[in-house]
Amino acid sequence: MARPSVLTPRATDFPRWYQDVVAKAELADNGPVRGTMVIRPYGYALWERMQQLLDARIKAAGAKNAYFPLFIPESFLQCEAEHVDGFSPELAVVTHAGGKKLEEPVVVRPTSETVIGGFMAKWVNSHRDLPLLLNQWANVVRWELRPRVFLRTSEFLWQEGHTAHVDEADASAYARRILHEVYADFMRRELAVPVVAGRKTVRERFAGATNTLTLEAMMGDGKALQMGTSHELGQNFARAFDIGYTAADQSRQLAWTTSWGVSTRMVGGLIMTHGDDDGLRVPPRLAATQAVVSVVKDGEGVAAAAAQLLADLTAAGVRTELDDRVDTPFGRRAVDWELKGVPVRVEVGPRDLAAGTATLVRRIAGTKESTALAQVVSTVPGLLDDDQNALYTQAEQRQRDGTVEVSSAAEALEAAASGWARLPWADLGPEGEAKLAEQAVSVRCLVREDGSLPDSDDEPGIQALVGRSY
Amino acid sequence: MARPSVLTPRATDFPRWYQDVVAKAELADNGPVRGTMVIRPYGYALWERMQQLLDARIKAAGAKNAYFPLFIPESFLQCEAEHVDGFSPELAVVTHAGGKKLEEPVVVRPTSETVIGGFMAKWVNSHRDLPLLLNQWANVVRWELRPRVFLRTSEFLWQEGHTAHVDEADASAYARRILHEVYADFMRRELAVPVVAGRKTVRERFAGATNTLTLEAMMGDGKALQMGTSHELGQNFARAFDIGYTAADQSRQLAWTTSWGVSTRMVGGLIMTHGDDDGLRVPPRLAATQAVVSVVKDGEGVAAAAAQLLADLTAAGVRTELDDRVDTPFGRRAVDWELKGVPVRVEVGPRDLAAGTATLVRRIAGTKESTALAQVVSTVPGLLDDDQNALYTQAEQRQRDGTVEVSSAAEALEAAASGWARLPWADLGPEGEAKLAEQAVSVRCLVREDGSLPDSDDEPGIQALVGRSY
Repeated sequence: MARPSVLTPRATDFPRWYQDVVAKAELADNGPVRGTMVIRPYGYALWERMQQLLDARIKAAGAKNAYFPLFIPESFLQCEAEHVDGFSPELAVVTHAGGKKLEEPVVVRPTSETVIGGFMAKWVNSHRDLPLLLNQWANVVRWELRPRVFLRTSEFLWQEGHTAHVDEADASAYARRILHEVYADFMRRELAVPVVAGRKTVRERFAGATNTLTLEAMMGDGKALQMGTSHELGQNFARAFDIGYTAADQSRQLAWTTSWGVSTRMVGGLIMTHGDDDGLRVPPRLAATQAVVSVVKDGEGVAAAAAQLLADLTAAGVRTELDDRVDTPFGRRAVDWELKGVPVRVEVGPRDLAAGTATLVRRIAGTKESTALAQVVSTVPGLLDDDQNALYTQAEQRQRDGTVEVSSAAEALEAAASGWARLPWADLGPEGEAKLAEQAVSVRCLVREDGSLPDSDDEPGIQALVGRSY
Repeated sequence: MARPSVLTPRATDFPRWYQDVVAKAELADNGPVRGTMVIRPYGYALWERMQQLLDARIKAAGAKNAYFPLFIPESFLQCEAEHVDGFSPELAVVTHAGGKKLEEPVVVRPTSETVIGGFMAKWVNSHRDLPLLLNQWANVVRWELRPRVFLRTSEFLWQEGHTAHVDEADASAYARRILHEVYADFMRRELAVPVVAGRKTVRERFAGATNTLTLEAMMGDGKALQMGTSHELGQNFARAFDIGYTAADQSRQLAWTTSWGVSTRMVGGLIMTHGDDDGLRVPPRLAATQAVVSVVKDGEGVAAAAAQLLADLTAAGVRTELDDRVDTPFGRRAVDWELKGVPVRVEVGPRDLAAGTATLVRRIAGTKESTALAQVVSTVPGLLDDDQNALYTQAEQRQRDGTVEVSSAAEALEAAASGWARLPWADLGPEGEAKLAEQAVSVRCLVREDGSLPDSDDEPGIQALVGRSY
């Protein structure tokens, strides 16, 4: 299909291509305050589906939703020393409210450990109250100097889980359960994004954590995106906020806590994983709109045939929308649906109808086929499954091809120009890591040879995954 | 059932009873910053169900979800004169962020007309882009001097709809559609709260609106709670933000906008409508947990019987939970479920089982009956329907009994001590209204004799509904 491209090609300028997709697919806009964003309906529908699918998994893992305040007294953040150091430069501070200067300034939450800690302390008394498994869907604010829509914004939407446990083993097991069952499985199965699960180095840890587990994905330009994290907080926050409990033997014990989150950043990851030079490609399992029945132009029986296709596809469990805006040129509408990445278009017009067919256009396979009207409904669900798998396979292939085994920091640096490098952590170490950092290259995570999570940074034989990142 | 009451009786001190229910039913807690609240899991589950049910209705009315930033430049609020006057005393202001003083302070949104207006202007070009129907689920901040959990909090959760239309008639019709189909029907059918739909007087209008439509409900103490509002904004915001469009005849026109919202305040309304001296009573259609299978104590086959009941009730479409915490005294658990207001408890223990029965305890009807195990599953759904209706009928009866027809401001004032007064608006007027305001009594809304919405405040024969309010 020869047509003028409306997007900067990825190979020409990947960041500009990303901005173009965000704008042309009507996903988001920049907000009036620097670094903030407006999530437009089509972009929000992606986030909403992510929320629904994740929320069900979070509940299946036993956590319950709650809501904690946006405003945190400044003094609360100071309760955990590393935490406040990590977040201070990014805080937004309310100094005036209700027409007066506040006695104590309040910060807009950058994350909620410090406000939830005090309530955990209040609600937990006995070992019977543990584990306490909480989650909230909320907005958070971290002032960004170099904002980029969805990826780094001064305000973003996320879920943050916060749990308290009787001992380290239980906390550690739960942080891993969230990482694997809730996050990684969701990303692979629903987002069709292959992620590497690993352990962060000390340098890359969440401020206040004893261990940060991460999911890293390779974007279309070979850079890494941290798609989600799950933290073991040890007893750091339990100590700071006195989250204690009476054990079965009546002794007084300190709890062990975790926190974990994923955000609207995943929308950016979705775009940069599956997008191509024609726009976004939405994985069918995630798509709020899996198929569009598009009326080419009016004609005898066309409206009725389109309505029937809409009804039949919907009845077959395909999330389908009707596009009958025949006063907008058909070509323009087709380009719009390509940009938005809706997996399947079923185009019907007078000519198709006369032949008893519709045209099936597949965004992901890139095919366009005339199909007997009677076959459309039975065909589409299988195509969607194939498309879902194809997206995953393509992304996995790119990630595999883009990762090279190296044996020195210098080689890792070279590989990071276009993808990822893997090398023995023992050959790099914190000093090598610091050197890479000077070139804006980082250790994305540490993994075992077999891909499983190391128990510590000192474990022999573990690998470092190195790359540039968003 | 003689047992020590854990709540202050409503007749003794209604506000204290309310606070007791909120605390003992584990609905919410006060946040560390004055006026903020923590919504605990059981309270959040109520809000979450409200969200789900409302969101489906909002989508059915054609509006699409989006998300606009929390932070609004201070200057934006000043674009609409009445609006900024109305909200200025309640604003929270961020003056510092990212470690620096901001060049222009930003306010934390008290509502989003002023940030959405600019984007509507950007997205609307032609009459074909209208109506533009947007909604967002978000937190907002209005600094409260006399906070009360769920009812008046400095931060609350809500949905705010914002729409733009080609003309006044379309805007007006949509504001009414939201009021009736989305809000009133939801409140009556799902919350079992009888609401009066009416028109606000000029004095009570939303700042910047040309007309505010409201839903008012009578609480257990005879006071009124504004449960939701839908505003016609005329061209006030369209003018302030230049939301214009090219009409079919190529002329340039200004759009007409609306906004509408309901908030976590509805949770407070639910408590004060249906709560009794034993705690909350949750309408079955809203309840996240409609039935609890409660194990009285362990014994041969008890766990299996409870599991079977849980599975069968769930399969029958009843949202059911298992309570097998046999190490907590049964009496205490029973009191907790009463406090939480779960509609049905199915109690099973060794004695019941030996007799082939379970004990069905109904929170709303207040009955307790031994029921053959085989009958439980077929019985419960019908009971839930009856309970839903009973709650509505009771609340409607109280509202009817608590409303008296009067003919003067003095009589209205007297009636407002314990309930509502109705009188001809012509007999009260803005002067009478101002006098009532001195005694903290207000005109809740104006209605026609037949209960429908007046087209203006000057319409002959309309009634004023007068009362104290939250």
